[in-house]
Amino acid sequence: MNRLRIYVDFIAPPDILQMLREGTAGHELVFPEKPVSSVLAKAERDPAFATVDIAFGQPDPAAIADAARLRWIHISTSGITRYDAPAFRALVAKRRIVVSNSANVYSEACAVHTLSFMLAQARQLPLGLKTRTAGGTATWHALRRASKTIRGQTALILGYGTIGKRLAELLRPFEMQLRGYRRHPRGDEVVPIVPAGQLAAALSQADHVINILPDSAETRRFFDQSRFASFKRGAIFYNVGRGGTVHQDALLDSLRSGRLAAAWLDVTEPEPLPEDHPLRSEPNCFITPHTAGGDRDETKTLVLHFLNNLHRFVHDEPLLNRVM
Amino acid sequence: MNRLRIYVDFIAPPDILQMLREGTAGHELVFPEKPVSSVLAKAERDPAFATVDIAFGQPDPAAIADAARLRWIHISTSGITRYDAPAFRALVAKRRIVVSNSANVYSEACAVHTLSFMLAQARQLPLGLKTRTAGGTATWHALRRASKTIRGQTALILGYGTIGKRLAELLRPFEMQLRGYRRHPRGDEVVPIVPAGQLAAALSQADHVINILPDSAETRRFFDQSRFASFKRGAIFYNVGRGGTVHQDALLDSLRSGRLAAAWLDVTEPEPLPEDHPLRSEPNCFITPHTAGGDRDETKTLVLHFLNNLHRFVHDEPLLNRVM
Repeated sequence: MNRLRIYVDFIAPPDILQMLREGTAGHELVFPEKPVSSVLAKAERDPAFATVDIAFGQPDPAAIADAARLRWIHISTSGITRYDAPAFRALVAKRRIVVSNSANVYSEACAVHTLSFMLAQARQLPLGLKTRTAGGTATWHALRRASKTIRGQTALILGYGTIGKRLAELLRPFEMQLRGYRRHPRGDEVVPIVPAGQLAAALSQADHVINILPDSAETRRFFDQSRFASFKRGAIFYNVGRGGTVHQDALLDSLRSGRLAAAWLDVTEPEPLPEDHPLRSEPNCFITPHTAGGDRDETKTLVLHFLNNLHRFVHDEPLLNRVM
Repeated sequence: MNRLRIYVDFIAPPDILQMLREGTAGHELVFPEKPVSSVLAKAERDPAFATVDIAFGQPDPAAIADAARLRWIHISTSGITRYDAPAFRALVAKRRIVVSNSANVYSEACAVHTLSFMLAQARQLPLGLKTRTAGGTATWHALRRASKTIRGQTALILGYGTIGKRLAELLRPFEMQLRGYRRHPRGDEVVPIVPAGQLAAALSQADHVINILPDSAETRRFFDQSRFASFKRGAIFYNVGRGGTVHQDALLDSLRSGRLAAAWLDVTEPEPLPEDHPLRSEPNCFITPHTAGGDRDETKTLVLHFLNNLHRFVHDEPLLNRVM
């Protein structure tokens, strides 16, 4: 087996780094001179990058052209926006560079985060946790009447993939009517996939619209004024994908008009949303700071996922989460 | 069929009341002179009560002795604390009065409320929804690291019954290790039931301790200092049963010592908890105002449940949710 040079541009605590070193014994790890701050951060250009066989992290797409030896890029996130462009796709195809991502690492946390949003909304937790009302008062009756279950309701999952599949599994006991929407249906989805021509009709029937779309030229501001106009009145909108897929002014209008009963967002544009952004003060808009994929053990899982793929790469087996 | 006199002491909007009138056509509805304020309120003594065959609501247990014609009490709540006393049990047994409750009405909402607590805690929603931190900061990393999934964790459900069974169904996709504890195991539970002698050991292994115990002489302050001392360090405690089953000072100590990582309470003693009660300002204590059983359609479901049982009563069939 050849000794491979592996560029690693994500930060990890010492024990996880040790695990990575042990798992890659026999190969060489190359680190950027200036470490990055998070799995979501974009690394700066680094001359050492031109000498590596494998890149694990968030390498600069523009640097690929100079990296003559590069054969495999393993992206440390689920989102691949920076790489999901025709020119980049053409380059890696021509150079026969394989690209995989870390969808499996974040899907469990993202699916659970989405369900936590759905249930917090159904049980009116934001209001319930801050109220001080006594049983039997008008406020209490209103809160209790606003509390719901989600059994038998309808949900549409856009950007149906690894996360959507897991969410569908978590929702199974609720006996909901689930549908999915994705760019390239594969035919093996566990929920019915809505064709593009029937999307507006599907949106008009959904009590819950769950946006897990990646950010790409095609999905940019996918949820705009006309898209929200298709929604069922009183629907709830969730975004655990990317902020750029939503026209935030249109979202705000839809909340204010009552078209949407509530919006739960883990992603916005920009992040964090400025303190004086009107969505911040909208009573039925709830925002977490891009933590849906977060999991106590995520860095460890991320390294294990990479090592699993390294084993497959070395033995010429198909990679997990291959995206290009 | 005899014309039955049915005492109804709960409030309902006109359309639901109309449904009750139509469903009881041929019988006579008797209402208290002074209407009650909620399904949880205790009705005052009423002379008309002595003349009825059936009571639907929250009748005064002391009034039963004078109600010579009474044959069936259908309690409008899931909790039966006011009736769950040896003297009352002896009286209804002697008088052959059947007692049923409304567990089926509230079980779905209660189970969903409990799961909403579990997931809000796992995903750190209270903190996440109010933070304004940017990705990559120390605060953001801490929040992401504190975020978890619940897959494979251990949960113990105390007061395992209709709600616990539904919660176990909702938790199935999370592949958790579930156990139950109940006063009178029936042998048909879908989770293993812990014998009383092994309760401390089971508590010491549980990541999640879910209290749905009813309030009775046996369960009064069931969770006291010594019970909390059995908990696994960092466990999370949920109470969607009754406030009286918890020694609140012991709960506070357990939160402050770090024995408990968090407590999520839908019930307290008293309700609401005074604004200056120390649990109110404890950072990892989260309280909703007894809304776990609340469901937009609960009054309708409650009436349908009663009408279903009335049909069974008239035709001499076994009642649903019979408790005595």
